[in-house]
Amino acid sequence: MKPPTRRYEYETDGAAIYRQSFATIRAESDSSHLPADAEKVAVRMVHACGQTDLTHDLRITDDFMTATRAALQAGAPILTDAHMVASGVTRPRLPRDNDVLCLLRDERVSLLAKEFGTTRSAAAVSLWGDRLDGAVVAIGNAPTALFHLLELMADGGPRPAAVVGVPVGFIGAAESKDALAAYEPRVPHLVVRGRRGGSAMAVAALNALAQDDEIGASVR
Amino acid sequence: MKPPTRRYEYETDGAAIYRQSFATIRAESDSSHLPADAEKVAVRMVHACGQTDLTHDLRITDDFMTATRAALQAGAPILTDAHMVASGVTRPRLPRDNDVLCLLRDERVSLLAKEFGTTRSAAAVSLWGDRLDGAVVAIGNAPTALFHLLELMADGGPRPAAVVGVPVGFIGAAESKDALAAYEPRVPHLVVRGRRGGSAMAVAALNALAQDDEIGASVR
Repeated sequence: MKPPTRRYEYETDGAAIYRQSFATIRAESDSSHLPADAEKVAVRMVHACGQTDLTHDLRITDDFMTATRAALQAGAPILTDAHMVASGVTRPRLPRDNDVLCLLRDERVSLLAKEFGTTRSAAAVSLWGDRLDGAVVAIGNAPTALFHLLELMADGGPRPAAVVGVPVGFIGAAESKDALAAYEPRVPHLVVRGRRGGSAMAVAALNALAQDDEIGASVR
Repeated sequence: MKPPTRRYEYETDGAAIYRQSFATIRAESDSSHLPADAEKVAVRMVHACGQTDLTHDLRITDDFMTATRAALQAGAPILTDAHMVASGVTRPRLPRDNDVLCLLRDERVSLLAKEFGTTRSAAAVSLWGDRLDGAVVAIGNAPTALFHLLELMADGGPRPAAVVGVPVGFIGAAESKDALAAYEPRVPHLVVRGRRGGSAMAVAALNALAQDDEIGASVR
């Protein structure tokens, strides 16, 4: 097989693309309000959405990085509301071959959602059960899933080690992230305030967490 | 299993969430420069990223919707550069149980990328081979994959039926989308100009294409 004739000028070296991207992001975005150990996470999230002003809406608690890494090192699962998030997590980067679980297509979800009077995404959160205890949770789609998680916790249910809270959209997304940020006793968390969020941002955060070598591990 | 105590006020009816979301999007965004039959695609893409100004950067050719739907109806595959895109396509909506294919993890990719002197994402595009003829292509991650596709076509290679061109980022993304928009003879296409894009936007566009009932088919 032969490569096509090169007709455009563009960078084709994966490591160079990452290096230049991250340099642009760092030149154009402000992460000064974030914990120093979380700066790399912010850079990866900006990288995933192409918007350097994302950091304005990003809030990361001081204990988020430590809590998340300790949980993953201890073998905790990643629980998520969206199959796209589960699909995007780069498995070889996880320190303990950690489970990555989305139960949205579990056969019990439809009936449970009807019984509970809520969305399928929220009902699927109840199916996490005791696996939630000490887990890393990533909500990348449904505000109702994040509200449901907080309500389970408030009822005395199991607590996750940390929450990546980046549901996206127009109905309840901003409110659900504000609720996570205000929840007491506080859970280590990362949120993107407002309407922005989504599976790609959740994946960028998760993949940055488990990565020490910023460039090397990224070139695919 | 019991639902947790409701402690927050939020909408839990899936159909109502979609209805209110789409109404907000239509009230706040301007799709007047887009083909009328593509307005629903624009709404879904805004929905996926939470940003009503996305439509400013959205360009959709007049023949895009017709070309894409005809291709899918004829059984054409969806070819994509990202596993997250493939993961996000709602299979039951596809009219002919169409294949959805990402070859980024094909065992030949690494060697081919080295031989070609390009990225793995671009090399994987060459592996599509004759399947590219008449296919629906969705580039949701790598600008190099989109450039590579255009170079294959310019060399006289197979032509896709339509291209969703939404690579994201800071190095080559805007340029690759401009190149697609300027490519002659023109390919029916959708692009998000500039840095924005990503797998979630690509998925939103693809899922909107195959959907007639805007609310009903979305409630999950």
